[in-house]
Amino acid sequence: MKRKSHQDGTTSPQAVAGNGLLDRRALLGSGIMLAGAITAGVGGSLTGAAAEPLENGPWSLGPGVPIPPYGQPSKFEQKVVRTLSNPKLEPRGSAARTPHHLLNGTITPNGLHFVIARGGETHVDPDKHRLVIHGLVKQPMVYTVDALHRYPMVSRISFVECGGNSAPLFSKEPLQGNVQALHGLSSCAEWTGVRLSTLLEETGVDPKAKWFIAEGADLPTMNRSIPMTKALDDAMIALYQNGEAINPANGYPMRLLLPGYEGNMNVKWLRRIKLVESPVMAINETKQYTILRPDGKAWQFYFPQEVKSFITHPSPGVGMKGPGFYEISGLAYSGNGRISRVDVSADGGKSWAQAALQDPVLSKAFTRFRMAWNWDGRPVVLQSRAVDEAGNIQPTREAFIAERGPPRGTPNVAAFTMEHCNAITSWGIAANGEVAHVYA
Amino acid sequence: MKRKSHQDGTTSPQAVAGNGLLDRRALLGSGIMLAGAITAGVGGSLTGAAAEPLENGPWSLGPGVPIPPYGQPSKFEQKVVRTLSNPKLEPRGSAARTPHHLLNGTITPNGLHFVIARGGETHVDPDKHRLVIHGLVKQPMVYTVDALHRYPMVSRISFVECGGNSAPLFSKEPLQGNVQALHGLSSCAEWTGVRLSTLLEETGVDPKAKWFIAEGADLPTMNRSIPMTKALDDAMIALYQNGEAINPANGYPMRLLLPGYEGNMNVKWLRRIKLVESPVMAINETKQYTILRPDGKAWQFYFPQEVKSFITHPSPGVGMKGPGFYEISGLAYSGNGRISRVDVSADGGKSWAQAALQDPVLSKAFTRFRMAWNWDGRPVVLQSRAVDEAGNIQPTREAFIAERGPPRGTPNVAAFTMEHCNAITSWGIAANGEVAHVYA
Repeated sequence: MKRKSHQDGTTSPQAVAGNGLLDRRALLGSGIMLAGAITAGVGGSLTGAAAEPLENGPWSLGPGVPIPPYGQPSKFEQKVVRTLSNPKLEPRGSAARTPHHLLNGTITPNGLHFVIARGGETHVDPDKHRLVIHGLVKQPMVYTVDALHRYPMVSRISFVECGGNSAPLFSKEPLQGNVQALHGLSSCAEWTGVRLSTLLEETGVDPKAKWFIAEGADLPTMNRSIPMTKALDDAMIALYQNGEAINPANGYPMRLLLPGYEGNMNVKWLRRIKLVESPVMAINETKQYTILRPDGKAWQFYFPQEVKSFITHPSPGVGMKGPGFYEISGLAYSGNGRISRVDVSADGGKSWAQAALQDPVLSKAFTRFRMAWNWDGRPVVLQSRAVDEAGNIQPTREAFIAERGPPRGTPNVAAFTMEHCNAITSWGIAANGEVAHVYA
Repeated sequence: MKRKSHQDGTTSPQAVAGNGLLDRRALLGSGIMLAGAITAGVGGSLTGAAAEPLENGPWSLGPGVPIPPYGQPSKFEQKVVRTLSNPKLEPRGSAARTPHHLLNGTITPNGLHFVIARGGETHVDPDKHRLVIHGLVKQPMVYTVDALHRYPMVSRISFVECGGNSAPLFSKEPLQGNVQALHGLSSCAEWTGVRLSTLLEETGVDPKAKWFIAEGADLPTMNRSIPMTKALDDAMIALYQNGEAINPANGYPMRLLLPGYEGNMNVKWLRRIKLVESPVMAINETKQYTILRPDGKAWQFYFPQEVKSFITHPSPGVGMKGPGFYEISGLAYSGNGRISRVDVSADGGKSWAQAALQDPVLSKAFTRFRMAWNWDGRPVVLQSRAVDEAGNIQPTREAFIAERGPPRGTPNVAAFTMEHCNAITSWGIAANGEVAHVYA
């Protein structure tokens, strides 16, 4: 561990990159004062030298309330909610975004998991719901929810991300939104259910089947085409989300989970799987979720969500409280496997230092990264850059836009050039501690 | 893979232990019909041969409801709640038990995490709350919640279990309760916060300090003595539970997390840590949470929760629906590290087969085990037996009771001989498919 020695005998951790990024391991044993805690009286008199007297709160002086059958977050956390694009359910899509700037760890609680739904939150009666598997199978089958509960199950922690997440980074000028507004269409949960391959063992598969069509039971009857290779790999009929039955907005009583694939393909309220020779060419694989390239050609059937990371702390709305020590922390994930490395820069990409990754680092799951930082109070630009085990590196915004070209075409088409944006996000920290979205 | 060949050319998986336990891997490719799904018409006519016509539900014919800012479970899951021992908050302790028989996976959602609270659910204002660290330190410190958010954090998935969980297994006759009633005082979440050792770097530690006392801010001002070795190992000041701020009943805005140690020591609404030379000898380490032995001596300061497992599916109230294939599934964990093995028996312990463990298998966290089973419809007794990486083996109830002796002493003392029960649980399956708690 490299440390600088001071004349007073203390040491301070060595910088590992520009503008105060520190070696996290070197913090231990350094004896430095960290994050602005209040020094209490050295003689053990706690109230003496402290900046304020310590008092019992009213919660220490009387009983609380009965434990509820189903707990809810504290009333002091009422701002920790999803933002809604369509709170009155007008006849258009609805988006609900995860407040990553107010969360920490890697699991998204079910109440805060992102949602995109074209027909709103759909409430399906599990006793009446059926899953049908048919088409190019040897034996079509109908499954009740109860029947599925008897099958061999698996659990995995997996992110789901909308193909349109992070699309604000296409704007010519940096859109002034927080992490929730820019990257809130991505969440991570422990999903438990039956592998689709287990059910296909039972139905048998006609060798002519190259795709399957998944259909939801909600009003828009969402359907998407998915390659059979995914069906026989890690596709899951998910019944549980973080231990309990899936939330209604996320597909209760069952959804398709395609770890790492575009969120829209993870069909909710799943009622039908049909094995076919070729894709169904649904609107959300021809007009939507198809990427128009600068050369006029399009990327269609573009499945994995690419390697991405963003810093959640600090971030817009979660600013700095004066110079000194902070932890920079954020989320990284890739639809192509595990995160192998995240680098952080505090000088807009001139120098980088490797962040600590919280274990376990799981494939196609959120990975929390952390970097120690001593902010000297001057303006800086923070960035994070993730690399996955397949060797994919998160691109700069400049490189990303150069490759994709700016949004273009008719108003209707333009929106759909902006899928799968995984460019690096930049946070500008001002001298007053405020954080803004910037392009750097 | 061993399989039996049938005259009709199909094969069936080989039994791995008595009464129908199957090799899970051998299910793949066996072509057997599993769990009573309905065979649909072979010609692709889905409604023809199925037992019932397939119809659109009303949820397919009209829009749903607006996405809520904070999602809640489906109205069809209203029975999936904690059971409460003190719903009117009379002047005694409150227990809320996790419904493990209705959950799957390993994460316990925050609304269903078990709670023991002597003063009810306590609502603390985070802006007024302080954490004090004092006693045998070089520099006493006072931390606000905001200040703690600037420190280096860690996340870990960890179970917390009440020392009194599973105490019903001490009853002379098997108590007729479900998994929730017998084992519901144990839950598992991803906790995120600041290591206590990080804060002690800042305060410094007087070498005379051998223990620390942790104190809560609730009415009973709970306090417990914990060895300094744990403080410098994996003790955490937890701020987040499954990504969001800790639920009020679990200690919002902060609790002590001592991975693997008796639940009662993981002090909620944590407000004070005092480093001392010897334990405080609080009531819950002298009278309570002390194990009276048959020889009249007592085990005091008995920290880790021992290796345990129980079957959640099937279990009382989650019975069988006719003979055929089922997955036996349950939870295993140990306060001494990772689960290394779980065996399952369907003949009351005469023969055992090794269950599949869901990865990742994490230290001091719930591990889900699974075993394939073909039930022939005759009465059987199911058991599970876990082994941890330290080599500890979950004991039979007979061996456990023989070592501890039955509950005894005065009525007040008797209750406290029943801590830390980790005996094997037995489920008796009747021919009609009902499941009861039995001693076997």
